[in-house]
Amino acid sequence: MTKLIEYEEASDEVRSVYDDIRTTRQNDYINNFWKAIANHPPTLQRTWQAVKEVMTSPGELDPLMRELIYIAVSVTNGCEYCIASHTTAARAKGMSDTMFGELMGIIATANTTNRLANGYQIPVDERFKT
Amino acid sequence: MTKLIEYEEASDEVRSVYDDIRTTRQNDYINNFWKAIANHPPTLQRTWQAVKEVMTSPGELDPLMRELIYIAVSVTNGCEYCIASHTTAARAKGMSDTMFGELMGIIATANTTNRLANGYQIPVDERFKT
Amino acid sequence: MTKLIEYEEASDEVRSVYDDIRTTRQNDYINNFWKAIANHPPTLQRTWQAVKEVMTSPGELDPLMRELIYIAVSVTNGCEYCIASHTTAARAKGMSDTMFGELMGIIATANTTNRLANGYQIPVDERFKT
Amino acid sequence: MTKLIEYEEASDEVRSVYDDIRTTRQNDYINNFWKAIANHPPTLQRTWQAVKEVMTSPGELDPLMRELIYIAVSVTNGCEYCIASHTTAARAKGMSDTMFGELMGIIATANTTNRLANGYQIPVDERFKT
Amino acid sequence: MTKLIEYEEASDEVRSVYDDIRTTRQNDYINNFWKAIANHPPTLQRTWQAVKEVMTSPGELDPLMRELIYIAVSVTNGCEYCIASHTTAARAKGMSDTMFGELMGIIATANTTNRLANGYQIPVDERFKT
Amino acid sequence: MTKLIEYEEASDEVRSVYDDIRTTRQNDYINNFWKAIANHPPTLQRTWQAVKEVMTSPGELDPLMRELIYIAVSVTNGCEYCIASHTTAARAKGMSDTMFGELMGIIATANTTNRLANGYQIPVDERFKT
Repeated sequence: MTKLIEYEEASDEVRSVYDDIRTTRQNDYINNFWKAIANHPPTLQRTWQAVKEVMTSPGELDPLMRELIYIAVSVTNGCEYCIASHTTAARAKGMSDTMFGELMGIIATANTTNRLANGYQIPVDERFKT
Repeated sequence: MTKLIEYEEASDEVRSVYDDIRTTRQNDYINNFWKAIANHPPTLQRTWQAVKEVMTSPGELDPLMRELIYIAVSVTNGCEYCIASHTTAARAKGMSDTMFGELMGIIATANTTNRLANGYQIPVDERFKT
Repeated sequence: MTKLIEYEEASDEVRSVYDDIRTTRQNDYINNFWKAIANHPPTLQRTWQAVKEVMTSPGELDPLMRELIYIAVSVTNGCEYCIASHTTAARAKGMSDTMFGELMGIIATANTTNRLANGYQIPVDERFKT
Repeated sequence: MTKLIEYEEASDEVRSVYDDIRTTRQNDYINNFWKAIANHPPTLQRTWQAVKEVMTSPGELDPLMRELIYIAVSVTNGCEYCIASHTTAARAKGMSDTMFGELMGIIATANTTNRLANGYQIPVDERFKT
Repeated sequence: MTKLIEYEEASDEVRSVYDDIRTTRQNDYINNFWKAIANHPPTLQRTWQAVKEVMTSPGELDPLMRELIYIAVSVTNGCEYCIASHTTAARAKGMSDTMFGELMGIIATANTTNRLANGYQIPVDERFKT
Repeated sequence: MTKLIEYEEASDEVRSVYDDIRTTRQNDYINNFWKAIANHPPTLQRTWQAVKEVMTSPGELDPLMRELIYIAVSVTNGCEYCIASHTTAARAKGMSDTMFGELMGIIATANTTNRLANGYQIPVDERFKT
């Protein structure tokens, strides 16, 4: 199993990313995901920059919506870690049980129609090609 | 290739679903997806009921957000038909190019972190298990 | 695009596999899949042996059921080539439109419940672990 | 982790679905999957109706074959819960170890040829397009 | 369909990325992938930086091996665009037909054993957990 | 859970495969994967022949590179067993932590660009079609 790199034993480069995670998220917790990929500092750097940008940079989607999209991908892929961490994050950002139920309903239905489209070999309508 | 069932040649059961799609979506267009699965009326019935429920029943998620979630699943699965049809629907509901770019950025990043979590075999943090 | 290796230009090793495909399937048609992987004879050999064994060796599953299972996997993965070829093969082995509709209904529903199981992080019941 | 809704604490709406599951399956056991999605009654309703319809309504596929198809999808997607529950159900419906071995052989081989078709970028034969 | 942003009509920010792609790849061609995601400059920036880093920064894996790994992922996911572009790139970096055949053989076999591991619900050996 | 077939209780057919695994891998360990699929001897035979061929037959890819490709597929699919066993095998063949980090970076990035290509519905460049 991957060694989790704790702040105390981390290099300056890794600590610098941990500090930015703490500042951005406004709490001290560094989760196992960051501690694991910290074994390869370029990956930690690049991944944190991407997550920070897509999840917190100003834009048209509010923070809660961004978490719901993240859950939709993670559930579709079956990533146990990501489902657990992003569901927790979404609840912290205001997702109620009902909202989670609605979200899961859409994810489930989309996975259904995706396969029906495959199996029935359906041609894309002209009006959807613009 | 699957025969597309047009309204004119459809059974009463299928026409009844087409009518409900038109009423619900407030336009006359029946797309190829519905015309294709109409070859099996029980599937058409059940699938339309599911889509209608998750996409239009009153709830906490607004219509545009529901389309974005649908796109997130379809892009992750690589369903060409669904990506084309739901991107068109999302634009009709107000999705700008910028919003689409933000959405794609989250989808892309989530597909990255899902695989990092797999490969680094990361244990789920206790605090995410509640 | 991959060069398709026709019988006339094939090596003895490749022709030997093509001959066995023809004998086993009782018709002369060598489809594009075999002609494409024939570019790497070890892959052609090994893949034909596997397909021949799982699809035609005596067993408890009848030939049509084996094709339905093959379609279920191919639709779930979204493999356009395999969906087209195995749907054609299944029809040749007796699959009616109704049977195809029932098959697609199960595939669609399974893809739904698979994701619900992921997203709701459901623990496996003890009785299913035996 | 999701709270599992037991019959005793369930609403009338949820109990009604549990009752139908028991009647249809002819045993009293409500598994964790149903107890988990019961947190969102519309999802429980819709999902049970779908599963009931595709798995038990009269049709051309027998009950055991329907479970094999369900396993094929679940194994391809890697859904741990569904693999465990449907393998148990299939055994209860008559699946022997040998049949399971044959099923797994087809699933494995189909996942192979699906990727060969992708990687070799194989054009669909004209005769498979009808 | 997405508008492809040509150099001539691009903003300075986008041109700057196109220039870096040209310099890094030592040729003038900007492919459709970059021209499409250029519709959202932050995505273009971040994605190019990631690709540039993982594919060209000094490391233990040589350039051709990196392309093979990229193909392995793309074939597994069935991404038509990426399979075509990275197979072309790998050939340019020295991949022979034989090497491609060996690569595809491994990809195919891994997709098989991945599903066998799922379906047989195999516990991870202790010695693989370190 | 699947019964693991130990050498002592195995049939001659299964023992013959176990012997070949030991000889080929030059150590006595038979892992859980082989012991599990040994429940269906034709699958054990065919799968071992495939793995042996793609991973050890003489070719242009060295043994360590073959393991990296195997990991790339397994991480993309999220197969817990295969990730654990092949990461262990790769380390035994010389994969350093840095090399693993580089590998994971490519896998992660490829999973990103695969989805961007899907979502932006990007047409394949003519020059990639040859």
